[in-house]
Amino acid sequence: MIHHLPKGFKFSGIHAGLKDSDDELDLALFFSEQPAESAGVFTKNRFPGEPVKLAKSTLKKGRLQAIVVNSKISNVATGEQGRKMAVEICDLLGKNLKISSDYVTINSTGIIGRLYPEGKIQKHLPVSIQELGATEQHLYNAAKAIMTTDTKPKVLSKKIQNCSICLVAKGAGMIAPNMATMLVYILTDAKLSHQQLQPILKRVTDKTFNCLSIDFDTSTSDSCIVMANGYAGEIKEDEFEDALLQICSEASMEIVKDGEGVDKVIDCRVEKAANESLAKNVARSVINSPLVKTMITGADPNWGRLIMAIGKVDDELLDHCEPTIFISGECVLKQGKPTKHDLNKISDQMKRDEIIPITIQLNSGSSECRYLGANLTKDYVSINADYTT
Amino acid sequence: MIHHLPKGFKFSGIHAGLKDSDDELDLALFFSEQPAESAGVFTKNRFPGEPVKLAKSTLKKGRLQAIVVNSKISNVATGEQGRKMAVEICDLLGKNLKISSDYVTINSTGIIGRLYPEGKIQKHLPVSIQELGATEQHLYNAAKAIMTTDTKPKVLSKKIQNCSICLVAKGAGMIAPNMATMLVYILTDAKLSHQQLQPILKRVTDKTFNCLSIDFDTSTSDSCIVMANGYAGEIKEDEFEDALLQICSEASMEIVKDGEGVDKVIDCRVEKAANESLAKNVARSVINSPLVKTMITGADPNWGRLIMAIGKVDDELLDHCEPTIFISGECVLKQGKPTKHDLNKISDQMKRDEIIPITIQLNSGSSECRYLGANLTKDYVSINADYTT
Repeated sequence: MIHHLPKGFKFSGIHAGLKDSDDELDLALFFSEQPAESAGVFTKNRFPGEPVKLAKSTLKKGRLQAIVVNSKISNVATGEQGRKMAVEICDLLGKNLKISSDYVTINSTGIIGRLYPEGKIQKHLPVSIQELGATEQHLYNAAKAIMTTDTKPKVLSKKIQNCSICLVAKGAGMIAPNMATMLVYILTDAKLSHQQLQPILKRVTDKTFNCLSIDFDTSTSDSCIVMANGYAGEIKEDEFEDALLQICSEASMEIVKDGEGVDKVIDCRVEKAANESLAKNVARSVINSPLVKTMITGADPNWGRLIMAIGKVDDELLDHCEPTIFISGECVLKQGKPTKHDLNKISDQMKRDEIIPITIQLNSGSSECRYLGANLTKDYVSINADYTT
Repeated sequence: MIHHLPKGFKFSGIHAGLKDSDDELDLALFFSEQPAESAGVFTKNRFPGEPVKLAKSTLKKGRLQAIVVNSKISNVATGEQGRKMAVEICDLLGKNLKISSDYVTINSTGIIGRLYPEGKIQKHLPVSIQELGATEQHLYNAAKAIMTTDTKPKVLSKKIQNCSICLVAKGAGMIAPNMATMLVYILTDAKLSHQQLQPILKRVTDKTFNCLSIDFDTSTSDSCIVMANGYAGEIKEDEFEDALLQICSEASMEIVKDGEGVDKVIDCRVEKAANESLAKNVARSVINSPLVKTMITGADPNWGRLIMAIGKVDDELLDHCEPTIFISGECVLKQGKPTKHDLNKISDQMKRDEIIPITIQLNSGSSECRYLGANLTKDYVSINADYTT
């Protein structure tokens, strides 16, 4: 795939000795030639990693020029010493790049409760800078360096007018705090201010990355950062937001597809809900229900499990609701009443498709929500049970 | 085991042709010779089964004399017709027993969205009555007749002064809405009024059955009913409550141990919490986290996953909390700081034990909560994916 690379950005991905094997990249650098207006959204976990705390504080000033990201060690629950190490790396990177360290931040993903190996990242920063380049290969190297249990790097891009948006993501057990976490970097040469970017990013992530769940655990390191360096000039805010929504939706699908042990994506749409929060709660309950997840694995159009998952949402607005349910496009329940449907036909369809659409109409309003989820497989259990610290 | 059977109660369990095989019992009857003061707690699912709605309404009058329970068909999401069938069965049972149908209720567990097979239960009610008896064998037959995916019947009993309490339960994937659900019947010859029983039952179930989770799905049929016929005379309320708490705690452990695909019980205690609701939310989050559940399967004392599961509780009281964590009795984190501990030793202990204790001290108050959960295994996935409607 040929990507639209935003002007004025450079990337690198190198092996800094954090991952065991020499050919595994583990240190990424995203660099803008000029300070870029930036915004970020972060994990809501109450024990965020030290890098998350640092990035949040750095982003208050609204500008970034370099983001260094390491995999393997998340620097979470490491206290004062972990914070100092993160600050030291940012300071050193700023010095080496000859830019203010106010514009530098660090993200980390990997094992909780362990510090960066003493001096290792610091030692490799010059190599990381030396390797910077503006080609697709450089971008893919950066995308590979942030991977943990992902099976492939995730890079997406989009052209809008003169501008380009490019997105690099990781996240497989979106949220396996050992070795995985969702990290997303969005780079654009559009000219937009921090004040414009922050609410746009919030709205878009609420509809995309906050509407996907592989195992409904919330990592201590999740971060999504956008950098806009303005090299391609002005752009209409709403057009940028549309493009960002599209690229983040596509990235969400990529992340779920590459989820730990996942072979089916659940594409759940809740429609005709009394309000948005109800739509979201119902969709989330369906997507996270182990019994729904295993029914998808078994290709069983068992709408009883959907009724159960909808009904366990604690909202009295559901009390007199008569839902209509579609599985793989077939209506199995119409306003609370079972339809005549061919179970085998639906099951065959579920076996064939990689993405299983489930549509739930609550028939009590006009709000809606789309949520992406994953099936639960024996492989998920293996990946997360057989791994040991 | 020899059980303490409460006076004045009779039980039966027969095959009424709901389950396929002739030797599978599927219709239970619990009968008190006199109307018994009764109380019940029921599922909070917003789409409860027709039998649940009926039992709730019957229990408003505070007395019961007979409970008929069928497995295989839950009579959930069956609307007007399902309700009529349930009422008809209760009426007929009352007539056959020569008691007021006001004192009769029905519970059902099994497949959602299907009606009872026309006339089948009705036809078998006389057999069910004929088989009534007051021996352990009769009680075990009743316990067998309410089983779905359970591997064994669950009967517990306790003597307090002159009185006996006996408890019959089912629930394996506590909450697999196809073929499982938690049902609990508590029979006692103690003399207690409905007004005394209801708050006692609420308090006890909040600490026991509402503090266990196999897959955190909530069935549409969960019910727990207590009947007290007074045959053994008065008893002190608090002594009765203590005994009930004990028997329900034991039953909770039995239910989790027999959970679908479960080979390890997670016994999670949250201590020193700022308040009770925080303690409960943290315990629930830990017990329900797929990453914690799989780490137990892998016998991996990975406290990073516990930090993640604690931190994903959305409560600002956690923001400056420095937890202490014990896994299998070993302190792995002390006031937020990793201890020196032997991972292999803890892992070996986790491999040996059937019940894995996890203690989390939040070090910010004095509230506590105990929650029972289950590990997540490939067998759980098989049981729930390979089953088809």
